[in-house]
Amino acid sequence: MEFMDRNFLLDTECAVVLYHKYAEHMPIVDYHCHIPVQEIAEDVTFRSITELWLGADHYKWRLMRANGVPEELITGNGDDFEKFAAFAAALERAPGNPIYHWSHLELKRYFGIDESLTAANAKDIYDRCNRVLEQSGMSARGLIKKSNVRILCTTDDPCDDLHFHKQLADDKSFDVQVLPAFRPDPFVDIEKPDFAAHIERLGSVCDWAMFSLSDLKDCLAERIQYFAFRGCKTADHGLPFVMYHPCDDETANSIFRKKMDGGIISREEAMAYRTNLLLFLAREYHKANFVMQLHYGVKRDNNAFMYEKIGPNTGYDCIDNHTPIASLTEFMNALAATEELPKTILYSLNPIDNTAIDSVIGCFQDSSCVGKIQHGSAWWFNDNKQGMLDQLTSLSNQSVIGNFIGMLTDSRSFLSYTRHEYFRRILCRFLGGLVEGGEYPANMTLLGSLVEDICYNNCLRYFGFKPAK
Amino acid sequence: MEFMDRNFLLDTECAVVLYHKYAEHMPIVDYHCHIPVQEIAEDVTFRSITELWLGADHYKWRLMRANGVPEELITGNGDDFEKFAAFAAALERAPGNPIYHWSHLELKRYFGIDESLTAANAKDIYDRCNRVLEQSGMSARGLIKKSNVRILCTTDDPCDDLHFHKQLADDKSFDVQVLPAFRPDPFVDIEKPDFAAHIERLGSVCDWAMFSLSDLKDCLAERIQYFAFRGCKTADHGLPFVMYHPCDDETANSIFRKKMDGGIISREEAMAYRTNLLLFLAREYHKANFVMQLHYGVKRDNNAFMYEKIGPNTGYDCIDNHTPIASLTEFMNALAATEELPKTILYSLNPIDNTAIDSVIGCFQDSSCVGKIQHGSAWWFNDNKQGMLDQLTSLSNQSVIGNFIGMLTDSRSFLSYTRHEYFRRILCRFLGGLVEGGEYPANMTLLGSLVEDICYNNCLRYFGFKPAK
Amino acid sequence: MEFMDRNFLLDTECAVVLYHKYAEHMPIVDYHCHIPVQEIAEDVTFRSITELWLGADHYKWRLMRANGVPEELITGNGDDFEKFAAFAAALERAPGNPIYHWSHLELKRYFGIDESLTAANAKDIYDRCNRVLEQSGMSARGLIKKSNVRILCTTDDPCDDLHFHKQLADDKSFDVQVLPAFRPDPFVDIEKPDFAAHIERLGSVCDWAMFSLSDLKDCLAERIQYFAFRGCKTADHGLPFVMYHPCDDETANSIFRKKMDGGIISREEAMAYRTNLLLFLAREYHKANFVMQLHYGVKRDNNAFMYEKIGPNTGYDCIDNHTPIASLTEFMNALAATEELPKTILYSLNPIDNTAIDSVIGCFQDSSCVGKIQHGSAWWFNDNKQGMLDQLTSLSNQSVIGNFIGMLTDSRSFLSYTRHEYFRRILCRFLGGLVEGGEYPANMTLLGSLVEDICYNNCLRYFGFKPAK
Repeated sequence: MEFMDRNFLLDTECAVVLYHKYAEHMPIVDYHCHIPVQEIAEDVTFRSITELWLGADHYKWRLMRANGVPEELITGNGDDFEKFAAFAAALERAPGNPIYHWSHLELKRYFGIDESLTAANAKDIYDRCNRVLEQSGMSARGLIKKSNVRILCTTDDPCDDLHFHKQLADDKSFDVQVLPAFRPDPFVDIEKPDFAAHIERLGSVCDWAMFSLSDLKDCLAERIQYFAFRGCKTADHGLPFVMYHPCDDETANSIFRKKMDGGIISREEAMAYRTNLLLFLAREYHKANFVMQLHYGVKRDNNAFMYEKIGPNTGYDCIDNHTPIASLTEFMNALAATEELPKTILYSLNPIDNTAIDSVIGCFQDSSCVGKIQHGSAWWFNDNKQGMLDQLTSLSNQSVIGNFIGMLTDSRSFLSYTRHEYFRRILCRFLGGLVEGGEYPANMTLLGSLVEDICYNNCLRYFGFKPAK
Repeated sequence: MEFMDRNFLLDTECAVVLYHKYAEHMPIVDYHCHIPVQEIAEDVTFRSITELWLGADHYKWRLMRANGVPEELITGNGDDFEKFAAFAAALERAPGNPIYHWSHLELKRYFGIDESLTAANAKDIYDRCNRVLEQSGMSARGLIKKSNVRILCTTDDPCDDLHFHKQLADDKSFDVQVLPAFRPDPFVDIEKPDFAAHIERLGSVCDWAMFSLSDLKDCLAERIQYFAFRGCKTADHGLPFVMYHPCDDETANSIFRKKMDGGIISREEAMAYRTNLLLFLAREYHKANFVMQLHYGVKRDNNAFMYEKIGPNTGYDCIDNHTPIASLTEFMNALAATEELPKTILYSLNPIDNTAIDSVIGCFQDSSCVGKIQHGSAWWFNDNKQGMLDQLTSLSNQSVIGNFIGMLTDSRSFLSYTRHEYFRRILCRFLGGLVEGGEYPANMTLLGSLVEDICYNNCLRYFGFKPAK
Repeated sequence: MEFMDRNFLLDTECAVVLYHKYAEHMPIVDYHCHIPVQEIAEDVTFRSITELWLGADHYKWRLMRANGVPEELITGNGDDFEKFAAFAAALERAPGNPIYHWSHLELKRYFGIDESLTAANAKDIYDRCNRVLEQSGMSARGLIKKSNVRILCTTDDPCDDLHFHKQLADDKSFDVQVLPAFRPDPFVDIEKPDFAAHIERLGSVCDWAMFSLSDLKDCLAERIQYFAFRGCKTADHGLPFVMYHPCDDETANSIFRKKMDGGIISREEAMAYRTNLLLFLAREYHKANFVMQLHYGVKRDNNAFMYEKIGPNTGYDCIDNHTPIASLTEFMNALAATEELPKTILYSLNPIDNTAIDSVIGCFQDSSCVGKIQHGSAWWFNDNKQGMLDQLTSLSNQSVIGNFIGMLTDSRSFLSYTRHEYFRRILCRFLGGLVEGGEYPANMTLLGSLVEDICYNNCLRYFGFKPAK
């Protein structure tokens, strides 16, 4: 096969047909990303490919660090071209890295560049990219439109008044739905030093005095209602692991009060508080018909020296391997017991959890929603060919792959929509392999509709999105 | 390759020869299954494909739940055809799921149906299956004979008087050996509420007063002797993980007494009791020349809401990830120390344990039996193409694959013997791949004999079964 | 493909070119092995293929045990040919085992034997091997030279005076660099019964009274200097897992004193002591510009019965699954905090740790060295085709594969250098697969230089070895 040509990753005839006839043209719903809504509202533009590619992408930063690039040329004040050249020099040494594919898909789809980027041609490609960036249609909204995105969900603080979301909803000139997602991590992470400050801020947003945990819960419930009013369909949590240390409301409140009064919270108390609040929130999501997304298996901020210098989300997180299945199932069981388990998507950053997760989701499916409990698409460090194939293989072994809600970018880059293309090619490769291996009949109509469902339709149905603004 | 044709899964010439010349015709020894012996003794028949396929199969139930099917059409009182149609509608959306292959192998081998089952042709296939079921040879015994089963081991309560096994042994008209297997879980699971009731029942079976743990041990030893007398060659344990918290007999007895007197047992006490009893039983198995099968890595009954409604073994179990290697090896070491480690088969439900298990078995092999410690075939949620290939790859990397005792169904379905075919095709694919990849010589005589050994001969030798009744 | 021919494991045209044009001719740096330096200094010869192959190879012993061979013919006093024949009989039943490939590569490269070894031809091959062994060039040094080894690092006790290394360095007739590696396990393993004896011995080597932990640290620092003076570039640790239980020096000293005075050390105290000493050593390695190799995830000496009979390192170790990522990252973070983290290679024996480790190394890279933190090559039970492909896939997904330092034997056999060939073939297969799958451009010059770097150049640069003596 030629390098990343029209049939990139499509290694069977069946895969080629499934991709080009069915997958390629489906619109995109990007149901979890980290794009700042303000950048869409303001329709920002980019001064250089360096700003657009390297300005905020810790994946690329890590690649450069693994090539010994000085921080000056990564997150520092280095020259734009020197940074780009340093990235190119790292990239050419990185066969097998998904960034190799992502980067070249982005060069192709947005910049019309088909050569592979090397240290040798970095200047030429840098200049050509920058000329393209001067053209119209290369702003935030232009890139989103060009990518055939129909709906995207940002990640938002419960305190946010969502005025940018309202502005975009009211803007007749932009027909993409930009919806908020509810991310209440600061209210769950009781062990963090800025916990109390977040509580006070929420209190002031809601105009409510935060005497007790019950006040916090009332305020969060109110914000869920407000988010729902602004079109929100999902909430999202980042957790080290899914814990289950139940306690009664009185105990949880005393832990809350202790923390608010400046006391020291033990690990057990933090667990108990988290469990109590998370159960409450999950029940609220169930009421609001929100999808609950649980992202776990992450150990963050592992390099204190660099954290001091450049802060969080700069490429110093890793996979954790303390992700007990027992507490995950107990947490879900507690909600299922009263029929209050919301639609849930489970994502572990540790790929060794795949099979166990796929066995867990099977324990909590019911007829209230097709594919009610989902195993999320291969995430972050697993968002590569092998990671996606492993997730698809495991999920299809244990469940009904035709009901999978598919891909999301989890990105803050306006070019990252090509990862949907990447996923779709891998999905078609996976299904094509089953067909040409004699493991599934060559029923192209049925397969085509499964592909369209996984790329788009399932997602629309599952979250309850409207197809158009 | 065509959909599930004669060479299904046989992707090399070598695999084709190995399967059709060697594997295909070997008889079956199904050394671990959950078929109720009474159904064989009474030679039950089936009113419909729904009863036969969906009546007791929690694999299929999970598939339907993942497709949003209401419980009424799964375990409820729904119409037989409606249930079948709901299953067909789920199945067609499940490429990559082993149930897709199992179901179609069963349609082919027992019903002569080669089409793929879809929502569209469900009625036609339902009717054809039911007509076939009215023919002779489709009873319990007929299906077993048709499947070329020579020996099968059921799973039996130590209290069982095994009169059905005796009846079948004496029945000259049925030449398949139906042997009991010893499953003493109720006497190990001291934390369960019905523990005392099981003890009392065993006491009454043995006509013995259960004053102490020593009495329990005497009774279990007596039952092992009785099972052996009835042809039993193996015992089987279901454990969350293999623990090792040794305590002396006096301590174990005091825990036993506490429980029998209605006291509350701590987690540590339960572990100590379990360890003590399991060591005792393992030594008895060693004396009786029983194979000890340890199934672990399971978290059962995760959905209390559904457990209340429909009870255990209904599709609400999952893989656990607390499966410490340290206590497993310490447990085995304690037995090896006195040369009392019985032949042992280790099965973890978590596939990430494969390589570690294969490294463990190598620490306890000895010359008393070829392949004395075995890594059991890919089990339950891993009983699929990828799971089997992973187990075969790991086992052959660490051990002598030619001594592997191969497949078992672990099923309570009379159609599940096609899973032996499934395994054999995957085994031949695996070996054929090595040969055509230049990794093993194309010595077909040697390979053919390895295949026959893994399919049948090893198992006969390992358990000490007689080839004929 | 033919059985292990010229293009063994090279399944694409690109792989064939990369191997034969670039990889095959690169010299070998074997930066971690267990060859006793004395055997090189004395240039030992071998009386038979049995002595050379089976004399000290616990991999082969395990294979024989898995085939039911009596210990007499494994580690006992059995006849040389009978041992060889027993090994051949086990080997022919072990398709898929890396020993199958290693053994046949060794027969080919050192003995010119191309047939596959079977029980049937064992006598013929045994005799032919022994005739070859009588020829010149089949001594320790002859085999090393024949293998194109340029540098090898042995594994040495800090107490060692390294006189054999000095002798070899001074020997003009042997141009291979034989360098020591610093392995201070006996001083870290405070829970072992012979801990105090090791301390006393080091004290007498350094002519220093060991009153306190501070004395021990001084002595170890002095030995590091001495090892560096003798050309040492690396230290190596064997750990069950990488712990992090920090304590102050005073506490660590009191634990040390307690042990030296014959007291009993708790598990927590052992952890605290280990952490304290390991942090100290890591800082010394950083000063000395040593590479720190951390081997973990092993559970050793699992079969006490056999340990009593034949001691450690005889084939009774296994993979552990208690390998917490949290403490590993905290340990590295503590060193990075003061910019004292040395160049580090992480090896876990458990292959399920691959992806997590590859995510960890990305958190500690910096510009002081290209690829400063490395994920070591697939180790011990993973040193096979699948294990290597998994490690390469995971590492290239998360990092810059072009900076990988590649293979080592970890062996005490003079024939094991063919494992570098094995690795290089698998590396070229991996890269060739990317190219022929359209995932990386067919830029053979660039790929060729990446291959040469991974086979040889990176290693030279990373450790700071001199290319010639």
